[in-house]
Amino acid sequence: MAERIDVGLIGATGTVGVRLAELLAGHPWFRLAEVGASTASAGRTYGAALSDLGDFPSLDDHTLGLTLKTLDEPWDSPLLFSALPRGVALATEEELAERGHLLVSNASAYRMDRDVPLIIPEVNGDHLGLVTRQSERWPGAIVTNPNCAVVGLTLALAPLHRAFGLDRVSVVTLQGLSGAGRPGPAAAEVLDNVLPFIAGEEEKLASEPQKILGEFAFGEVTPAEFKVSAQAHRVPVAHGHLMAVSVKLSQPTEVKDIEVAFQNFMSEVADDHLPSAPERVLEILDDERRPQPRLDRDRGYGMTVTVGRLRKCEALDVKFTALVHNLVRGAAGAALLNAELCRVRGFMGEVGR
Amino acid sequence: MAERIDVGLIGATGTVGVRLAELLAGHPWFRLAEVGASTASAGRTYGAALSDLGDFPSLDDHTLGLTLKTLDEPWDSPLLFSALPRGVALATEEELAERGHLLVSNASAYRMDRDVPLIIPEVNGDHLGLVTRQSERWPGAIVTNPNCAVVGLTLALAPLHRAFGLDRVSVVTLQGLSGAGRPGPAAAEVLDNVLPFIAGEEEKLASEPQKILGEFAFGEVTPAEFKVSAQAHRVPVAHGHLMAVSVKLSQPTEVKDIEVAFQNFMSEVADDHLPSAPERVLEILDDERRPQPRLDRDRGYGMTVTVGRLRKCEALDVKFTALVHNLVRGAAGAALLNAELCRVRGFMGEVGR
Amino acid sequence: MAERIDVGLIGATGTVGVRLAELLAGHPWFRLAEVGASTASAGRTYGAALSDLGDFPSLDDHTLGLTLKTLDEPWDSPLLFSALPRGVALATEEELAERGHLLVSNASAYRMDRDVPLIIPEVNGDHLGLVTRQSERWPGAIVTNPNCAVVGLTLALAPLHRAFGLDRVSVVTLQGLSGAGRPGPAAAEVLDNVLPFIAGEEEKLASEPQKILGEFAFGEVTPAEFKVSAQAHRVPVAHGHLMAVSVKLSQPTEVKDIEVAFQNFMSEVADDHLPSAPERVLEILDDERRPQPRLDRDRGYGMTVTVGRLRKCEALDVKFTALVHNLVRGAAGAALLNAELCRVRGFMGEVGR
Amino acid sequence: MAERIDVGLIGATGTVGVRLAELLAGHPWFRLAEVGASTASAGRTYGAALSDLGDFPSLDDHTLGLTLKTLDEPWDSPLLFSALPRGVALATEEELAERGHLLVSNASAYRMDRDVPLIIPEVNGDHLGLVTRQSERWPGAIVTNPNCAVVGLTLALAPLHRAFGLDRVSVVTLQGLSGAGRPGPAAAEVLDNVLPFIAGEEEKLASEPQKILGEFAFGEVTPAEFKVSAQAHRVPVAHGHLMAVSVKLSQPTEVKDIEVAFQNFMSEVADDHLPSAPERVLEILDDERRPQPRLDRDRGYGMTVTVGRLRKCEALDVKFTALVHNLVRGAAGAALLNAELCRVRGFMGEVGR
Repeated sequence: MAERIDVGLIGATGTVGVRLAELLAGHPWFRLAEVGASTASAGRTYGAALSDLGDFPSLDDHTLGLTLKTLDEPWDSPLLFSALPRGVALATEEELAERGHLLVSNASAYRMDRDVPLIIPEVNGDHLGLVTRQSERWPGAIVTNPNCAVVGLTLALAPLHRAFGLDRVSVVTLQGLSGAGRPGPAAAEVLDNVLPFIAGEEEKLASEPQKILGEFAFGEVTPAEFKVSAQAHRVPVAHGHLMAVSVKLSQPTEVKDIEVAFQNFMSEVADDHLPSAPERVLEILDDERRPQPRLDRDRGYGMTVTVGRLRKCEALDVKFTALVHNLVRGAAGAALLNAELCRVRGFMGEVGR
Repeated sequence: MAERIDVGLIGATGTVGVRLAELLAGHPWFRLAEVGASTASAGRTYGAALSDLGDFPSLDDHTLGLTLKTLDEPWDSPLLFSALPRGVALATEEELAERGHLLVSNASAYRMDRDVPLIIPEVNGDHLGLVTRQSERWPGAIVTNPNCAVVGLTLALAPLHRAFGLDRVSVVTLQGLSGAGRPGPAAAEVLDNVLPFIAGEEEKLASEPQKILGEFAFGEVTPAEFKVSAQAHRVPVAHGHLMAVSVKLSQPTEVKDIEVAFQNFMSEVADDHLPSAPERVLEILDDERRPQPRLDRDRGYGMTVTVGRLRKCEALDVKFTALVHNLVRGAAGAALLNAELCRVRGFMGEVGR
Repeated sequence: MAERIDVGLIGATGTVGVRLAELLAGHPWFRLAEVGASTASAGRTYGAALSDLGDFPSLDDHTLGLTLKTLDEPWDSPLLFSALPRGVALATEEELAERGHLLVSNASAYRMDRDVPLIIPEVNGDHLGLVTRQSERWPGAIVTNPNCAVVGLTLALAPLHRAFGLDRVSVVTLQGLSGAGRPGPAAAEVLDNVLPFIAGEEEKLASEPQKILGEFAFGEVTPAEFKVSAQAHRVPVAHGHLMAVSVKLSQPTEVKDIEVAFQNFMSEVADDHLPSAPERVLEILDDERRPQPRLDRDRGYGMTVTVGRLRKCEALDVKFTALVHNLVRGAAGAALLNAELCRVRGFMGEVGR
Repeated sequence: MAERIDVGLIGATGTVGVRLAELLAGHPWFRLAEVGASTASAGRTYGAALSDLGDFPSLDDHTLGLTLKTLDEPWDSPLLFSALPRGVALATEEELAERGHLLVSNASAYRMDRDVPLIIPEVNGDHLGLVTRQSERWPGAIVTNPNCAVVGLTLALAPLHRAFGLDRVSVVTLQGLSGAGRPGPAAAEVLDNVLPFIAGEEEKLASEPQKILGEFAFGEVTPAEFKVSAQAHRVPVAHGHLMAVSVKLSQPTEVKDIEVAFQNFMSEVADDHLPSAPERVLEILDDERRPQPRLDRDRGYGMTVTVGRLRKCEALDVKFTALVHNLVRGAAGAALLNAELCRVRGFMGEVGR
């Protein structure tokens, strides 16, 4: 893997797009060669468009000097990262797959499509096999990562699902601002306030985890059968989604055994040496004051999910607090890790040009 | 009730004490005549001590000019409001009851004492009868109100408990700063952050509601039998505790029937015309973006609990969001309402001197 | 003045427009009868449009039920309040004046027009006489109030200007969010941050005070001659513009004489009993920790400007801190007070239909 | 300089002390060997004491395992960093100097002592020579760095002072929370608020710059003669002091020449390769929206002072915005850089044991 592969990034000027560009800077396998945005910004340099948006990322001059393309223009890179909003993604990702691209997408548009893998590599890297089902629909492929809160929740649930089985889950989220994209909530809305509603979020939390933790066999994914009830809140935190989780397991289980399950969780891609995979996928904290968004979100360069306050739940079986860096592990880093998985699993080669 | 009764306030310089002093200003039945604080402040004027603490309440010059007394000094007022911290309350409320005072206390020290009523007048005003049990212990009496979050939770649960019975409850709180008293969390702790732990809070949420919703018969309170699992968070909001609540009822129930139960909730003190009782104890909102702390905490002058987002819960039966103004309905206003209840129920006369 | 006069409000859905509607509720002289907004909202009820914007003001059902009109439709009310953004105001206020309306405008579009009075009634109510110059241009009239920060600065400067003369002024502002209108800065921009730049603000601070403090004689206003240097900042405060002001006077002056000048400041409209005029235009505080936005912005129902920390300045002559509620005294209340002045000065009758 | 020198840190548990410990981790010249705190914490491990304070720094286990000493115990390290509060420093730094230590102190206690150098190495490294005057007072030495805001102001003023001379300066600060130490302002104080007063801050801003920019000759420092007027504010920003500065120079000067002076500023220690010296001491920004605390405070690992919005001032001559990371360049990094200067200037050897 000596040479870096040129990749494209569509939806480059959004919050997730910018973070992807930052993560791609200095990436050992990929090099950002093309960036795209809405027609309004097309033709301008990436840096000028970002400056107008008041976004000042840590990017090198070469990247900032790239000219923004529209999605209609031809794209050279076989691999395209998509950080598009759902609506635009619905209309264009399929077309780009038809043009033969491998779309590694953070958008929600195709996540629940039965032919499209919804992947957290450490948990269900094997689902990537779903991609072969897409060959009848288009020459390219679409691979997706989950919603930002779902990534954190599902990584925290995976050890319990594997070890004991899940019956039902109640999750209440306190989500950071960057999860809302740009511009996100106005300061006047969240100063001295929290918001008890995030459009579409609870539905994703209630449906994506089952697909991710589902079984891939005979070429299709059978979703896991547990239920999730979600209550989502926006809080005045820059980055980091904190989640108060209660779980009922499929069998009677002691809290200490649950802690062991967390500690023993093995990543499915531990041997693949993916550049963006953190040393520890899950970190379990003892201090009852943790995890806290500002103190813990950057563990593992933002790719580690932190779990704390594990204890008995009087309503279900067990409860705990989980934290995910929504913009890294939950979005940009999630997509990047998926692309790395595609590479090592050889799915990049399948994408024709 | 032509003449206002002189009352005392101990713990006057704390956050709850100050709010009580504000609520007592212009109260039709009570007049603040004595204020007490720790030995450190004793002998100073109330206003000077507050100014040093950086607290600038809306109080008249007469009140600000009152001299702070210690708890050891003799107090003239039969009725004393206590806004003491738990530790001090444990050591002194009993002694003041022995000196013959009626203590209307916001402190947690005696809340779970089987002889001490723990009251939300609209819900369990009849529990005031417990006071007679105290006559064997001291000539005075202690009457308590619940923890600030518990008031909101229990008021929201009461209609469901009455109509359908409660089996178990899961509550996740997002609590405002003033609930932590003075000084409360440092700005540096909660800027760009939320805290997933509040010492002692979850225990109170797990035990006080059952006593409040318990049955008073044959001179004692039998706690209700449902279970509560609580996960408490501190958020950068000035006032207002928001709660994401999930409930399993004792019988299968439709969401629309639950809404009816909320709408039909009748206060136990509706006919008592207590000055601090709000016109509506519970307000049910349709807008899925509500309640929000800054927008809704002041309903009913801070004495109304707001409920919104009522919907089916996939983990238990039903879920909703509730909001309580922690400093008013959850503390200072709660104590004041209890004192008003004592007055109309004639328990003030029983307190000897 | 037994009967309330019907008035219209254009730009009704903006932050200032909504506050004006709130201030007009229960106003003794005026009744809000017509509301207008951009074409996008026209035809909807005022309440529905505000709800979509996430704005939930304290307005009665009648007001929320008013149908939003476009500016092109005929308006019945002779008096129209304008809370339009500058661009729209430039294009339409003149046209509405040509249709015969009295425009009492918060917009900046015509503030510096030499025929248009720029008024703070307590300071330069006599400038209203400029209106007569407009009769050659249109049958109606335009009366403006200053920029929100300028109101606070100028009210604080007026006593010094009158008593000693001003030579030059340096003002550094820390301005609240509502001054930016809706939506204003994103939460992500001002969390853990302050912004050292507000477009157009410094220019207004550098030019409007001189017109307001200018002399009206022979039918025109001669601006005062002092210089103002301004540095504007946006801070995460809901309402309230705090200003650090340094002043060089036209003559050597002791700090204690300046304090006397502040204390002795006489409003020009003290005898007019304008409903929105505060009891005290200026309040001077001794406590060196004040004024603070959250503690002091609501003095005089938001119409009082607070001054504190008056002391010698080593760079100019004297320095102090001033605070204005930008949305009330600096915008909605400013316009309302101007309308009240128009009424008592008889300028309403001049406006034809 | 092959071997790292063992150093001690007194006041280790304060905000500045902790940051110093973090900066010393991996320092090429120094190794943290001893830590001290108040009697209350003495005997506990550094990590345990910090955890109780809710401080969770990025420190290795060895450092966290150090046992906290009192100041009365013997200290082995010739070089002691002092991050003490002023009161404690007054009482103890002199005593430690008498015990022969070199005190590199961030405390304000001895800054204005005529025998004690007050140093920003890039500006007045030569003032270190003052240390020799101390030999008559004690066998050790005290070297101080300025107040956190003063460091930023003085670094921004130095080029103008050198090139044109300063006549007077007006500075208005917007200071971050960490400048207040631990715990600093309560969240309840600064939520939806800014504070217009910081005890002692304006006096330091008005006096320290002149000493730093003074001339060292014939063994003493003659302060520069310009005047500084300061108005200090606390804002809800984690780190970073933003300053709105206006300057009157000793001679008529064009803005463009001032920009050149900024660009050409030469550090006095450019050739000394001090490990903590940033590549660029001053960075001048063109974008009128900058500097902003969150975006710019970490430039040069927190050691670069950023200047922007340079333009003509109507009240004095020129105005601009400056930003300093108060905890790094303004405190911990400042002390560390001073220690490095002591090392290369050979002042470490003079300290006897």
